Amino acid sequence: MLFDRVAVIGVGLIGGSFALALKQARACAHVVGAGRNPANLGLALERGAIDSIAPDAAAAARDADLVLVAAPVAQFAAIFSQLEKNLKKEAVVTDAGSTKRDVIAAARKNLAEKIAQFVPAHPIAGAEKSGVAAASAELFRNKRVVMTPLQENSRSSIDLVQQAWSACGARTSTMDADEHDAVLAAVSHLPHLLAFALVHEVAGRKNSEQLFSFAAGGFRDFTRIASSHPEMWRDICIANRDRLLAEVTVFSRKLEEIKELLEKSDAAALEKLFAEAREARDRWIRSS
Amino acid sequence: MLFDRVAVIGVGLIGGSFALALKQARACAHVVGAGRNPANLGLALERGAIDSIAPDAAAAARDADLVLVAAPVAQFAAIFSQLEKNLKKEAVVTDAGSTKRDVIAAARKNLAEKIAQFVPAHPIAGAEKSGVAAASAELFRNKRVVMTPLQENSRSSIDLVQQAWSACGARTSTMDADEHDAVLAAVSHLPHLLAFALVHEVAGRKNSEQLFSFAAGGFRDFTRIASSHPEMWRDICIANRDRLLAEVTVFSRKLEEIKELLEKSDAAALEKLFAEAREARDRWIRSS
Repeated sequence: MLFDRVAVIGVGLIGGSFALALKQARACAHVVGAGRNPANLGLALERGAIDSIAPDAAAAARDADLVLVAAPVAQFAAIFSQLEKNLKKEAVVTDAGSTKRDVIAAARKNLAEKIAQFVPAHPIAGAEKSGVAAASAELFRNKRVVMTPLQENSRSSIDLVQQAWSACGARTSTMDADEHDAVLAAVSHLPHLLAFALVHEVAGRKNSEQLFSFAAGGFRDFTRIASSHPEMWRDICIANRDRLLAEVTVFSRKLEEIKELLEKSDAAALEKLFAEAREARDRWIRSS
Repeated sequence: MLFDRVAVIGVGLIGGSFALALKQARACAHVVGAGRNPANLGLALERGAIDSIAPDAAAAARDADLVLVAAPVAQFAAIFSQLEKNLKKEAVVTDAGSTKRDVIAAARKNLAEKIAQFVPAHPIAGAEKSGVAAASAELFRNKRVVMTPLQENSRSSIDLVQQAWSACGARTSTMDADEHDAVLAAVSHLPHLLAFALVHEVAGRKNSEQLFSFAAGGFRDFTRIASSHPEMWRDICIANRDRLLAEVTVFSRKLEEIKELLEKSDAAALEKLFAEAREARDRWIRSS
């Protein structure tokens, strides 16, 4: 067994799935959960994702060998500061934050002397559902987990965190935190912003009911991520603000380029652009 | 049996599915197909979507009781002009074009005296796949078909076309062509343009391979419609240019609004906007 006692701070879709996956893999004996929502924690207990509930992150950290922080990223500073009080010397901490530079800054400040015990990670898996009700032991199966280790991390801490994510069925890799935030801004954070923008725009019109009633499968899939957790995405957008703003600018420029083709009725250039996009996407789908 | 002989001009995803659905419903005795791609027509014959192949639309129209035009909309003028030569007095024509004002204009000009026989329609169903290989008798099941009848249409022509789409399992309704083009620009044409834009932008970068390799389910669903048929979407965009340009402007304004919230790090306003979008989308999903 990899871990005797695992603490999960934030037992939602991600935290709950992590706990269920570790248990399914028989990689831990006991999971203690902490979080803001007592009803959700009760459900986590009922679903067998956790074995006990701690009143706060500090209490959950006591005796834990592994701690996963899986809350919206704006709460990380306060959580790290609580963990710092009780973290065992041999324990490792990882997280599931979708942004890494801000999480690392919060950890340096609040884990202080214990910073070497924190190995940052981002499981690239999720769903538009939230809460432990949507959790699944299979959520991370064959999904990527990007680890952005710190200079202070020991090889053994990195290995232990890597093994925990592998036990969940994930494929781990490592990356620089800066690069991580730039990559995810382009392929995750921007699309979420665009989907929220489109739905909000349509919903705000006088004839929004009519518009929705003629929306079909294309609209449904395009906007699926606009059903994502508002607080979580608020925090991601703010945490990765500079990178995301740069992506919005780049995208707006591309949209402006297409608009100009449309204004000129440049059918050949439009078709070429659409064909290149389709080919690039189909190539990606085939290879993934 | 509703129709003795049905002609399908353009036996792709839509035309092929229409033929298969009518046959499954035993609503027609014989389907003749015409189109640009001999290999695709051969496959349509092999799949049983059509019973014979005509060399062109004019030949297909001879003796047909119902004609469906299901080609990219830029080809409609030439097709209508061919149909006009041989269309029987009692025959009705419908179409599957995603835009209606341009289709109607092309029909008025090229069907000329026979314009009353044309009842325009738009099945709001599709897929990112194209060709008869992707066709299915179930494609229109419980999907909406918007009919935009002309003043010249007789009640019986409208009824006949409505019955054909109903036989395919679709839910029909009627709308003004202008209104149709405005509604579809917002909930279909704009999302397609945004998806093409995002994929094209990402694909054009030096590190596009890396970016795609970290793209996950959210990106996949958001961009599904970027795998749509480039020629078909070129034609739709050009045909509905004015409405689509207006939608691009409105969307850009919304994106600019969100960008400003992000620049100000206005977390509360961002969360409110995301929550409103999620609530609107979830309400739509529940009701649809």
